[in-house]
This record gives sequence, structure tokens and C-alpha cells, in this order.
Amino acid sequence: MPININRLSAEIEELASYSAVPAPAVTRILYSAEDQAARAWLREKVIEAGLSIREDGLGNMYVTLEGSDSGLPSVATGSHIDAIPYSGKYDGVVGVLGGLEALRSIREQGLQPKRDIELILFTSEEPTRFGLGCLGSRAMAGNLSAADLAALTDADGNDLESLRKQAGFTQPLDKVQLSTVNYHAFVELHIEQGPRLERDKLDIGIVTSIAAPATLRVTLKGDGGHAGATLMPGRRDALVAASEIVLDVEKAAQDSGSPDSVATVGLMQVHPGAVNSIPSDVLMEIDIRDTQLATRDGMVARIQQTIADVCERRNIGVTVEVLNMDAPCQCGSQILETIESVTKDKGYSYKTLVSRAYHDALFMAQLCPTAMIFVPSENGYSHRPEEFTAAAEIEKGVEVLAETLCSLAMQ
Amino acid sequence: MPININRLSAEIEELASYSAVPAPAVTRILYSAEDQAARAWLREKVIEAGLSIREDGLGNMYVTLEGSDSGLPSVATGSHIDAIPYSGKYDGVVGVLGGLEALRSIREQGLQPKRDIELILFTSEEPTRFGLGCLGSRAMAGNLSAADLAALTDADGNDLESLRKQAGFTQPLDKVQLSTVNYHAFVELHIEQGPRLERDKLDIGIVTSIAAPATLRVTLKGDGGHAGATLMPGRRDALVAASEIVLDVEKAAQDSGSPDSVATVGLMQVHPGAVNSIPSDVLMEIDIRDTQLATRDGMVARIQQTIADVCERRNIGVTVEVLNMDAPCQCGSQILETIESVTKDKGYSYKTLVSRAYHDALFMAQLCPTAMIFVPSENGYSHRPEEFTAAAEIEKGVEVLAETLCSLAMQ
Repeated sequence: MPININRLSAEIEELASYSAVPAPAVTRILYSAEDQAARAWLREKVIEAGLSIREDGLGNMYVTLEGSDSGLPSVATGSHIDAIPYSGKYDGVVGVLGGLEALRSIREQGLQPKRDIELILFTSEEPTRFGLGCLGSRAMAGNLSAADLAALTDADGNDLESLRKQAGFTQPLDKVQLSTVNYHAFVELHIEQGPRLERDKLDIGIVTSIAAPATLRVTLKGDGGHAGATLMPGRRDALVAASEIVLDVEKAAQDSGSPDSVATVGLMQVHPGAVNSIPSDVLMEIDIRDTQLATRDGMVARIQQTIADVCERRNIGVTVEVLNMDAPCQCGSQILETIESVTKDKGYSYKTLVSRAYHDALFMAQLCPTAMIFVPSENGYSHRPEEFTAAAEIEKGVEVLAETLCSLAMQ
Repeated sequence: MPININRLSAEIEELASYSAVPAPAVTRILYSAEDQAARAWLREKVIEAGLSIREDGLGNMYVTLEGSDSGLPSVATGSHIDAIPYSGKYDGVVGVLGGLEALRSIREQGLQPKRDIELILFTSEEPTRFGLGCLGSRAMAGNLSAADLAALTDADGNDLESLRKQAGFTQPLDKVQLSTVNYHAFVELHIEQGPRLERDKLDIGIVTSIAAPATLRVTLKGDGGHAGATLMPGRRDALVAASEIVLDVEKAAQDSGSPDSVATVGLMQVHPGAVNSIPSDVLMEIDIRDTQLATRDGMVARIQQTIADVCERRNIGVTVEVLNMDAPCQCGSQILETIESVTKDKGYSYKTLVSRAYHDALFMAQLCPTAMIFVPSENGYSHRPEEFTAAAEIEKGVEVLAETLCSLAMQ
């Protein structure tokens, strides 16, 4: 099935222009002006393609290509378009615009599948605004109640309930959750965000499982004061305590016994933030992952113990909030077989692999059999402006996606 | 000589209301709207008091009480009103408004000294905006050329030359520097910013020397990427490198052999700052002080070596900028004798001490004999909203200042 890669490449470039920072970097935060403008642009593309559209109270968007028997559970694909600060233009976007291109191609070929094929734009896969990743898919799978959702607040103290309504999403939040009878299968196309496919010179990655992430938010409360006049023995410097924790987070991943373990302090804010003032407060967020639940949980426990020890020794007040501790996902074997068969038929090279990054597919797996298709990331780069996947590589991924969706929708 | 402490206390409260953050915290950054409003308010107070006023191109303000022989070198006092983020209402302000109260009291008593007595409002004693403390006094003493000054840029990339002109200070910058023949003596009234006077239940501190500060700005450049997908061995995490440096900065002060040594990382900014993104860039500023130049310089050298070692081992790009390395100041013995004699005459308790904090007096000492008068700080707190000195304590400090200025101006 031919797809129009020129159209798709132009759309990827166009979507990247909806950004809060200058190109090539992209920043697109949930419900920001850029996010709203990007959504409006996407709605127009969907309508131009003659596809139907529905949005829920959180801003998840459902685009439908009708099948001959719409009463059957649907086959779905999808991803996200929100982007963390100063990231790139492919993460998530390839799955959304590639999915749209797949649906358009199926339609333009005059094919009518048996089942409906849906494209889902998931709201806020990135945790940037509310400290919680996969907001849309997490809520669809019933992991967050309407009340939990409404009460989420961002760093400026704005609550989700107000923000979503200001953004025009006024449907009730208790309608966001989906039933397990809605879907027959879910397949997400995504960039690899790692170097494995490029290194092995392969076209396609078939994801067999997704690693289990945990996120901790740590607030440290020490004692401020003048950096010149306050002698060392009486100090309760929140940044020095935080620095000990950062070093142990790195060590926890290095010591876990698994080469797959990663642990990162990605966010640290220091208050009051003046060269001649002792830091009184630090906010840090820690991301801890492994493909094995037990290994991941072992790292979390060790890091929590370190935080407690450091803060007791340094007389620092501390709160640790577990923002999420999600279980890993095993992909659906029948979908994996379909993807593999389509990939072989087209003569594309491939390997099976584990996704160490967080995806909406992790939560869709709670609703139906799920799998992912990866395309290569140049240098393995992601979450930075240099993120890049060549058009020819994206084209192969979208072809495999389109044929996989068709095949699954004929079942 | 009686002073009007009620008027002065009310003015301290009033000035604190010019702040970018809610009370009791104060933030007043050079050339900000709050700084401009506070300066306008102060000009009115000076004009109400019938004193003459002059401002230079940097915004330093000179207020003059004329003596009978204006041709002689003047006696001066003064301090600053800029405030670092989330600090208090007394640092600097007690010296400016206390100095104004001293000049008003001398005038209201009908006294006419022989020499002019000047009150100087120094521009930006705090290093908040341009990373360099004592901007005004440093320039007056000839430590910064007009070109150096104009080229200073803030964190947003705005240069001083544009900012000062927007703020209405259009006089040429090459007129900021003063001559050593301008002043006979300089005396600065200030809160102690430490616990020594309170602990010993003393009214007045007579400062015999000021500790020597050094400031380093360090930028670390690692490699970003997805916190889930990038395995540990290939990482170049700028925050982990920064954390090693923070811990060694603390240790450098603890190991220096001098109990007076302090070293602090007060500012740290982490980029891009998302929980699931490896930090690629860190900006940090380090403040290093001791009363002995050799000890201070020893710490600076050790910390620079640590930065080099950590960055080499972790393959992190680094630049280290020495923002300042000022020499300590020894106060003028004749002024110290005058202050001590006035203090004794009034029956106030006192001790001589060293100032570990940075003051405009450090640079005025390059122009003329200089000393400082300290009043107690409750709990030693400074650079935080809890900063407090009781009105009765401020009153004693201003009395000693006023009589010291009169005595010096009669010489």
C-alpha cells in the first residue's frame, strides 16, 4: 500500500512550527497556546481527509475511518503531539501524523476494512505540566478517576479542571474512561529514541514489551541565609543534600545488577537562587526504569532510603511523593505476528526489542492486545532538538503500520 | 543627638512594599519596576528633607547636606536598597534610610558641620542581575571601565547600557568613577547578618575588616536525551557532574583549616528541566570567602581543580568565569577610634568584629579611610524574609552613625 511520504514530511515540518521556543527546538506544553494551535491545525487536516472526529473532556481526540461492520470492536493506532521543553519534532508526532497518513492511504486506495480503524491523539503523554505521564491513556484505561484528574495542579497552582475548560474541553471527565470491549487491537508507531536500530542498520523494530517507569517528586526544605555571613557548621543547605541524592540515583542504576536499569534526576529547581544566598528549598523529580518490575522496585526502595538517610544526617525536611509506579507491559502475540509478517512481506529488515521509554501503548495494553512499531532514531537522540528520523525510514514504518491496521481490521 | 525612630521605622516598612513578591519576602532587582518605584519614593523623601540630590549614569544617588566649607573632601555614608529574590527588608535599607535619618537629624538640630556630609545610594550591591556585586561602588573606585560596565549582560541577554538608559540614567558612564580627593571618610551602617552581637547581647559592632569574596560562574555542557531510552554507560549528565562539584565546594570550606571559611553554590539552573530528560546543561555560581586572602585563594584553586577533574572524568564541556576575586579591606583606624568614642559616650555596649559579608564599604576603602557600624540581626538571619532588627537597636546604630559623621565632618 503506497503512502504519500512528501505530504507526511511536510506536515511533520508544519506541526514543528507550533512551538514556544525557536526552531529546531520544540516546546509544546498541554493546553498552552502552541498546543491549542497545533490541535486546531490537526483538526483541519482530519476534516480535509474526510474522517470523522470526536474529542473527550481531557482533549483526547478520536479520528475514525468507518469499517463495514462498525459494531465490532475497533482497531486503533495513535500517539501524542505534546513536547517537553527544548525537544524535537518526531517523538509522538510520527505516530499521530503517520497514523493519519495510514488512514488516508487506506481510504485513498478505496479499501474498506471490516472493523472501524481509529487514530487516537492522546492528551499529554509527557509529564511536563502535571508531573504525570500518559495522562490521556492512563485515564482511558481507568487508572485515574474523574476527581483525581480534575484535582491535578501544575507548578503555577492551576488545576486541570480549570485549564481543560479554558482550552474548550468541557465534556464530563467521567466519560474519559473506555471499556475493554471498545478495542480489538492497538498498534503505536514511534521513533525508537535509542541507537539500536541505527547501529544494526535495520528498518523496523517490533516492540515485545515496555519497561516499567516510576517517578518520585522530592521536596527538600533546609535553611536559607547569607552565603558570606553564615558559617559552615550551622548550615542546612538543601542543594548540598540534593547533590548527594543525585549521585546516589546514578549509583542505584549502576549497582542494580541489570544493564537495562536507568535512573535520572531530570528536574531540579533551587530556591531562592542567588549566588550569595544559601539554598533553602529544592524540588527534584526522579525517573527510575527497568524492564523487570522487581529490579525497578529495588532501585526505588534504595533511593527512598538514601533520601531519608541524607535528610536525617543533614537535618533537612523532606517529602517524597510517588507520582507513578506503573507495571511493565507485554505486547500481544497475535499483533506481533501480524507486524512481523507484514514487515517480511515488504522485504524490510527488523528485530524485536524492548521499549525502555514510556508510551501510551503501556496503558492501552490494559484495554486490549497492544504492540508497537519503532523506526530508527539518528544517533539514538530524543528529547532534544537534534532528534531525527529520515523520511525514507518513516515511510517504511507508516507502510507497515497501514498494512498491519488493515490486516487486523479484516479479522 | 536625638533621631526620629518612628519616622525611620515607618519608612523601612514603606520601602519594603516595593517588592516583586508578597510580604514579608522582598525582591527588588536593579532597574526593575520595583527598583524604579523605590528610587522615585526615596527621591521624594530626600527632597522633602530639603537635601540636594545628584545621580550618575549608573543610578548611584548622591544626597548632600552642605557644610560651611564645601571645598573640603566630604564625609560620606550610604548603602544599597536592591534586594535578592525572597530576602528581607533590612539588608542595605538600614544604611540608606538610617543615613537619611542621620542627615535629617543633623539638619533638624540646626548643626552645620564644616565638611559636606553625603549619603550615597549605591547601585546594585547585590550580584543578582549581572552576576557581579557592588556594581556602583566597584565602578566609583575605578575597578570597572565604562566599556566593561556597558557590556555587562543579564541572564536574559539584556545589556546594562540599554537597561540603564531605559531606567532613565543617561549620564556618561565614564563619569561614574570618583577621585581619591573627593572623600575624607566613609562610614556604612548595616545589619550584622550574623548571630554574634545578639549572642553576646551587644548594641553595636565596630567592623575592623571585611572578608574577601570570590565568585565563579560555571557552565557545564553534557549530552541530553531521553531518560528512559539512554542507558547509563553512554551518558554525559551535566547535573551529576554539577552535584559532585557542589559536594566538593562544601568540603573545600570545611577542609580549609580556617573556621571563617565559607563556600556556597547559591545558584544552579538545570536545562532542559523535565523529569524524563537527561540534563544537558547546568549553570552554577559559586561564592567563596575568607578573612585571609591566602586561605580564600587556596579554596578557589582547589575548587577549580575539582571542576576540571570532574568534567574530564565525565567528558563534560566546561567554562569557568571568575566574576570577581576582591581583596579584603582593613578599616581606617581614626574612624574606628571615633566610632568607639561615640559609642562609649552614649553608654552603648559594643565589640569589634570582622564582616564576612560583602559591602560597598569594601570598594569605598579604595577611595578613603572607611569603617562600618553593625546593629544586631535576630537569629543571625539575613537574605531571607525572617530578617529582623528591632527599632530600638536601629535607633542606637543611627545615633552612633549621626554623631560619628558630625565628628568626622568637624575635622
